[in-house]
Amino acid sequence: MHHFTSAADVSDLNLLVEKAFAIKQNPFHHKDLGKNKAMCLLFFNPSLRTRLSTQKAALNIGLDTVVMDVGKDAWQLEFEDGMVMNGNKAEHIKEAAAVIAQYYDVIGIRAFAGLENREDDYAEKVMESFKKYAGIPIINLESPTRHPLQSFTDVITIEKFKQTERPKVVLSWAPHPKALPQAVANSFLEWMHLTNYDVVVTHPEGYDLANQFVKDFPVVYDQNEALKEADFVYVKNWSSYQSYGKVLHTDPAWMLTREKMKLTNQAKFMHCLPVRRNVIVADAVIDSEQSIVIPQAANREVAAQVILEEILRN
Amino acid sequence: MHHFTSAADVSDLNLLVEKAFAIKQNPFHHKDLGKNKAMCLLFFNPSLRTRLSTQKAALNIGLDTVVMDVGKDAWQLEFEDGMVMNGNKAEHIKEAAAVIAQYYDVIGIRAFAGLENREDDYAEKVMESFKKYAGIPIINLESPTRHPLQSFTDVITIEKFKQTERPKVVLSWAPHPKALPQAVANSFLEWMHLTNYDVVVTHPEGYDLANQFVKDFPVVYDQNEALKEADFVYVKNWSSYQSYGKVLHTDPAWMLTREKMKLTNQAKFMHCLPVRRNVIVADAVIDSEQSIVIPQAANREVAAQVILEEILRN
Amino acid sequence: MHHFTSAADVSDLNLLVEKAFAIKQNPFHHKDLGKNKAMCLLFFNPSLRTRLSTQKAALNIGLDTVVMDVGKDAWQLEFEDGMVMNGNKAEHIKEAAAVIAQYYDVIGIRAFAGLENREDDYAEKVMESFKKYAGIPIINLESPTRHPLQSFTDVITIEKFKQTERPKVVLSWAPHPKALPQAVANSFLEWMHLTNYDVVVTHPEGYDLANQFVKDFPVVYDQNEALKEADFVYVKNWSSYQSYGKVLHTDPAWMLTREKMKLTNQAKFMHCLPVRRNVIVADAVIDSEQSIVIPQAANREVAAQVILEEILRN
Repeated sequence: MHHFTSAADVSDLNLLVEKAFAIKQNPFHHKDLGKNKAMCLLFFNPSLRTRLSTQKAALNIGLDTVVMDVGKDAWQLEFEDGMVMNGNKAEHIKEAAAVIAQYYDVIGIRAFAGLENREDDYAEKVMESFKKYAGIPIINLESPTRHPLQSFTDVITIEKFKQTERPKVVLSWAPHPKALPQAVANSFLEWMHLTNYDVVVTHPEGYDLANQFVKDFPVVYDQNEALKEADFVYVKNWSSYQSYGKVLHTDPAWMLTREKMKLTNQAKFMHCLPVRRNVIVADAVIDSEQSIVIPQAANREVAAQVILEEILRN
Repeated sequence: MHHFTSAADVSDLNLLVEKAFAIKQNPFHHKDLGKNKAMCLLFFNPSLRTRLSTQKAALNIGLDTVVMDVGKDAWQLEFEDGMVMNGNKAEHIKEAAAVIAQYYDVIGIRAFAGLENREDDYAEKVMESFKKYAGIPIINLESPTRHPLQSFTDVITIEKFKQTERPKVVLSWAPHPKALPQAVANSFLEWMHLTNYDVVVTHPEGYDLANQFVKDFPVVYDQNEALKEADFVYVKNWSSYQSYGKVLHTDPAWMLTREKMKLTNQAKFMHCLPVRRNVIVADAVIDSEQSIVIPQAANREVAAQVILEEILRN
Repeated sequence: MHHFTSAADVSDLNLLVEKAFAIKQNPFHHKDLGKNKAMCLLFFNPSLRTRLSTQKAALNIGLDTVVMDVGKDAWQLEFEDGMVMNGNKAEHIKEAAAVIAQYYDVIGIRAFAGLENREDDYAEKVMESFKKYAGIPIINLESPTRHPLQSFTDVITIEKFKQTERPKVVLSWAPHPKALPQAVANSFLEWMHLTNYDVVVTHPEGYDLANQFVKDFPVVYDQNEALKEADFVYVKNWSSYQSYGKVLHTDPAWMLTREKMKLTNQAKFMHCLPVRRNVIVADAVIDSEQSIVIPQAANREVAAQVILEEILRN
């Protein structure tokens, strides 16, 4: 593995999951792997669990990390060629990426969707430009359209908790007061295509995700119908892809409740966190034994460690 | 020791002081104690010396630290049960605490008093909730009502400099242009109750501290009277507890001057820093040989290291 | 070497350059030099490559670093003696410097020019006060009038790329939309005086740098004239020293273009970065083989490591 920016960077998911299970048993087995190496973590948007889990994963393998919170306004980069840079952009991505690559061995980058211009967001300019100009491995810590460390975490979690060979996994939209990116949902589906799971997507009309991520997964606008016999229910809000970045409605009927969970096959409840209680999911669900959000979050560290090990070994 | 959030977590103060003196002699004696462990430092309010001293203490024992400056606005947590979280609070403390605990071995937390609602501040919601939901050791890096790492530092310092078995220690209020929490003063008194010192509290009327901290210590409204024969003078401003969070007056007559120090038994001058010169204390006092504020500040590292060692050994 | 705040701290530049070349060969040769030691990096102004390169250099020698982004507003320090500190300055430099020195072995400080009061900026109050009151080594990470880690980097880079014993080095002003400090240019000249290079300074009238830095170097107001037969062209904008902090003009004719590079002896193009493309320098120059800005930036890590090693060995 050279970069880790999408599911396309994975050649053998089963092998990665096996490595994750081994790391859970003994996180400090490869304590020397990161010796004399260092990772730069570049946050254009704030991060809590991604930073905490990735830094801990790095510590486990003796890899030093240096964090740079740049903020999307603090350090405005020019991504276009040939521009006369007399405006508010003080550095071109060509220099920015190349310079960091002089000092560090890996760069982790978080840069959210702006949710204003769909074409811009889906072009993945930041991630692709760093890949192009840094010349060293790039790790996606959540980009406008993907969150692959979260998605790998989700697969590890399902593999850990699944009771049947081919579980039914439902990705369900839920209401949220603010406009959120499609990254987690897109990415989850992208990774689900690497599995043999029976995947169903459910959301209100107007919230269809991009075809490149949904592909042939069935989409059901009736949440109750979708939830029937589900083994895992992954709940997540996203803003509209068609009416790009818009919150079309916040219908509380889409919140995941105990009644809806009764339609499932005693499904496990999953969410990437942070989660708004009694908006996305009822207390009675997230506080129940069917909720696996905390072990799921714990797997963020494991997922990051597998990926770091793969990249350092390369 | 499991948590360290107040004097109540101390079972044998003399033993802790002995350990502090041993660490001062050889800070690197337990360099392997923190191996494969990591602490998360969570700052809801900014910190200078607490962060610098705690991170250095952790380095001394090979404990990795990861710092998260969350700011009180950046990451608003919901602390109440059963709320419909459709406002500005994006995460519930239940998930926040549990997730960090998946990655880290200890959590240090700073969260100041809001100084608007006394009941809220004195309920110590942040510290108590993390203790309840994290399930791993919590260290108080200054909370609304206490600053125990500072207070332990203060005891170490007095033990180091005291010339008599039972020194007279005066806690004196001093003026300050802004409203400050009562945490340092409360906490100092709480720890003084663990000693045999002759403690006197002095402040203008209207500045009485909460009974739970003062208990049976004599309170004298006449500063000159209180200072007589003092061996240590600990100066600190706090805003009113009764007229909660208010600055009732900023009378410069309460500033500690050379004349007032003459009333004492060549007392040592102490302050937790930062200190406003010629407002809290005259240059002639803080620049004199009687001032021990710098060795006192140096003991912050020692105090933090003792506590970290106690918690990791547990 | 005790402090590193200007060229005056260098006793033998050739020896430092030799050490830089040795470190480039083997950065991890002195991995134990920083053992049980730690550096505090204090940023009153934001930093990208200075922080990333210095932290990486520290990692190379096993020196722990703790970063404090204080912002010039977040932590206002009083530098004058005898003040009644009842305004917005919460701590005196006397305490601030002495306290950090209790915990750390070296302090690195960045504090830019305010560009409002020349006398204040050129007094180097922050750097000089920390030297005076900390009592431990201070490293300048860019101060109002100097940026010695950059200048040392520049010398290493010229030594690496020079083809003749005594290259012609031209420092040329270039336009920029915002007012920038004179620090990089001043410091570059200060270090050039430690070499035997043939140095020429060129800029529009009104942009003369302070005499203490230019000394006997020839100043030419005709850029084309200056560039003739140059082996290295170091381009940098600075605001006016005479009309202090003012942008007198932004004449695009001063941008470094391919045509101008033809006047040189196939000169290498240097810049400290970040650089505004097609404002400071044309794409055709910075993207050409004559541009050495990336290896120059890479030498920031090497320069920082040499200085840290010198200081720790002392």
